[in-house]
Amino acid sequence: MDLLRTLCHLAAPAGNEAPMTEFLLNYIRQQQDSWQVQPRVLAGEQFQDCIILVFGTPRTAVFAHIDSIGFTVRYGRQLVRIGGPRAETGYRLVGQDAQGEIDCTLLVDEETGELSYEFSRDIERGTELTFRCDFRETADTVQSCYLDNRLGVWNALRLAETLENGIIAFSCWEEHGGGSVAYLAKYIYEQYGVRQALISDITWVTEGVRAGAGVAISLRDSLIPRRSYIERIRAIARAAGIPHQLEVEGSGGSDAKELQHGAQPWDWCFIGAPEDHVHSPNELVAKVDIDSMLTLYQVLLREL
Amino acid sequence: MDLLRTLCHLAAPAGNEAPMTEFLLNYIRQQQDSWQVQPRVLAGEQFQDCIILVFGTPRTAVFAHIDSIGFTVRYGRQLVRIGGPRAETGYRLVGQDAQGEIDCTLLVDEETGELSYEFSRDIERGTELTFRCDFRETADTVQSCYLDNRLGVWNALRLAETLENGIIAFSCWEEHGGGSVAYLAKYIYEQYGVRQALISDITWVTEGVRAGAGVAISLRDSLIPRRSYIERIRAIARAAGIPHQLEVEGSGGSDAKELQHGAQPWDWCFIGAPEDHVHSPNELVAKVDIDSMLTLYQVLLREL
Amino acid sequence: MDLLRTLCHLAAPAGNEAPMTEFLLNYIRQQQDSWQVQPRVLAGEQFQDCIILVFGTPRTAVFAHIDSIGFTVRYGRQLVRIGGPRAETGYRLVGQDAQGEIDCTLLVDEETGELSYEFSRDIERGTELTFRCDFRETADTVQSCYLDNRLGVWNALRLAETLENGIIAFSCWEEHGGGSVAYLAKYIYEQYGVRQALISDITWVTEGVRAGAGVAISLRDSLIPRRSYIERIRAIARAAGIPHQLEVEGSGGSDAKELQHGAQPWDWCFIGAPEDHVHSPNELVAKVDIDSMLTLYQVLLREL
Repeated sequence: MDLLRTLCHLAAPAGNEAPMTEFLLNYIRQQQDSWQVQPRVLAGEQFQDCIILVFGTPRTAVFAHIDSIGFTVRYGRQLVRIGGPRAETGYRLVGQDAQGEIDCTLLVDEETGELSYEFSRDIERGTELTFRCDFRETADTVQSCYLDNRLGVWNALRLAETLENGIIAFSCWEEHGGGSVAYLAKYIYEQYGVRQALISDITWVTEGVRAGAGVAISLRDSLIPRRSYIERIRAIARAAGIPHQLEVEGSGGSDAKELQHGAQPWDWCFIGAPEDHVHSPNELVAKVDIDSMLTLYQVLLREL
Repeated sequence: MDLLRTLCHLAAPAGNEAPMTEFLLNYIRQQQDSWQVQPRVLAGEQFQDCIILVFGTPRTAVFAHIDSIGFTVRYGRQLVRIGGPRAETGYRLVGQDAQGEIDCTLLVDEETGELSYEFSRDIERGTELTFRCDFRETADTVQSCYLDNRLGVWNALRLAETLENGIIAFSCWEEHGGGSVAYLAKYIYEQYGVRQALISDITWVTEGVRAGAGVAISLRDSLIPRRSYIERIRAIARAAGIPHQLEVEGSGGSDAKELQHGAQPWDWCFIGAPEDHVHSPNELVAKVDIDSMLTLYQVLLREL
Repeated sequence: MDLLRTLCHLAAPAGNEAPMTEFLLNYIRQQQDSWQVQPRVLAGEQFQDCIILVFGTPRTAVFAHIDSIGFTVRYGRQLVRIGGPRAETGYRLVGQDAQGEIDCTLLVDEETGELSYEFSRDIERGTELTFRCDFRETADTVQSCYLDNRLGVWNALRLAETLENGIIAFSCWEEHGGGSVAYLAKYIYEQYGVRQALISDITWVTEGVRAGAGVAISLRDSLIPRRSYIERIRAIARAAGIPHQLEVEGSGGSDAKELQHGAQPWDWCFIGAPEDHVHSPNELVAKVDIDSMLTLYQVLLREL
């Protein structure tokens, strides 16, 4: 889990994913010789801070978002949210401005809900703050900020090791309204004719989805994917004997929103391990669920 | 109205439109020899569960959504909505899971508004339920669940009988956030240069739009179409002497949302009969409004 | 400021921008001989009521929306909003229907918030009403309805006078959900390879952005632009010594929404003078902020 630990420590809030992009490009460069198939690596200004890896003759694309939630410094000591972070007085936030490193404390006004920070000096307007990473590992679990979606990125990188045919797309802005999947989806569909997608992301532990009971296959969230595609995925998961759970939600969303609303006929399915303490510094995931997530992706990329 | 009755009985909630697609493809195959012009039929994976019919040299495209509202079984006996169905305790819901046919009853918790079902057994997670169809016809009216939008589909199929130049597009997911019109609109614009659209859908009886007073031409809903296009349509309707009403709303939407927000310069107008008891099992439409709807579409496809 | 005064008097609510389009095409035809470079003028049905001006070899596109907020007459004497106008009893509204000119008074029901009008006769259903323009100029300020965004349009037209390389796009529907920037952005990216955008629009005076303190460079609103692009803009503004302020908001939006969500990798930044009394008949802007806005656009179009 050293790779996951490293990913969780990297600050890359939505809009400023460049540090994560740089890390991933370096990692891919160093690791790809050991991978079963060497991918074509697509990156650069045409893709902003996204990366596309193309392995062999792809039929399915895996989307993993590399951005995280966080906070932007507004006026005075006010903060505004990047995405939807949980906010509790006392959370430690880190960042950097022209005056140097920042390690401050979040304050939530109990009456108004307004957010601010406590620090030894004023922080420059527009500075981004992220949760300070406290990575905790036990025999059975990992716990950290940003498992959503560093675990989805980790899953994609581990999948890459043995992937023969498929696409891995690292996307941006997912936590804050989206903005990259529309052009990634257009490019992939037009260049490779691929229109099957899997969303490598993390979901919620709920009354119907339990920690430790296997990766969740989402039948719907705020959007509803095409039923026939979901049924094919369920059949493959069952036939392979991979532990999994079925999720049914009326809210929530993912990179799939942009696939659903884009101008290509994408089929998509969200498949991810469930976590507890969502969008807090203490996101918690069971290791067996991470295992079944990776195994299911490996099978699906072969059989879909 | 046998065709309409059949359409209303078919279950095709958003995301699972395949049964309706299959019915329509069969119907078109059987009927098209009797049509004035034989259309080119575009269907298949490239269009998911949508169908495009191209007649002659098209200048205008008619969009009719084939999906309906409904419910998804969540955990325990909970239900979540597909689209925005009205919910009242006692509504009969039907569906199917691996254990067989389902005919159950909707329950609405009076305090929390939460939805569940009453049935002799548990229903499998993720199963879709739709209103049980009780189709009622009088001399002056039709009443059933899903007149929205089986009546819009019926209007398009009747229009097809005499259509010489034009496109009919059967779309999916309209009731639940959309997801197909973006690529249909792109394809139609790029292949045929068509950018005039009519939305064949059903609207609401309100204080300004009465049952029996003619088809409604919508001047706006939550979105505002381009004024110059609407004025051309109004002039044609007036010149043809077709009974119609002008609708002005601040809310509501249709397949036009995707046309308005897509990357092609579509002009669009929603034109449809008004119904009472919207999104319930008892949607009610006056036959004279159905007549004027079809007549107006016939004239507009010739003259626009 | 005669040009600005003329622009503010023209009625062009979202959906009915044609009168503004016609004015601009005439203005461009008359003025372009005096401009440093003659642009290619793209207009017509393919662009609905939008206009694109292409100067030299463009690297950056400026978007200025030409529509305004207003009201639509509904049933009886009801009004519904076009965009988000402020509403106070007594505001004078003007328009036109088949019976002639309209100069009426807005009424706001104190209990329900519902909007209606007071006038000597009924106004035809679907008629658009806009604020009556009372243009006021002092040594230091301009005040009028619709400075948002006639000032952004004015800025673009003044920029055109000396522009050597760049694109100016006049867009529609910005105040009411958008609908033109998606296809403008696609066209510009595909034809010219341009993916750098500046949004020439007007922002709000707030606790952090003061009137008279220079044009505002927005670091974020409800959406978050790509950080690296914003940093390049800030560096150019600092190096040029142009008075400016940094804005950080959690809400609000602009034409940039469609750039962010479209299927091209646009970088974008909102840069505009701040105004007080937003979306009222009395929008107020300091002249020094207009000056620094134009100067910054001139520098950025050269250096970005």
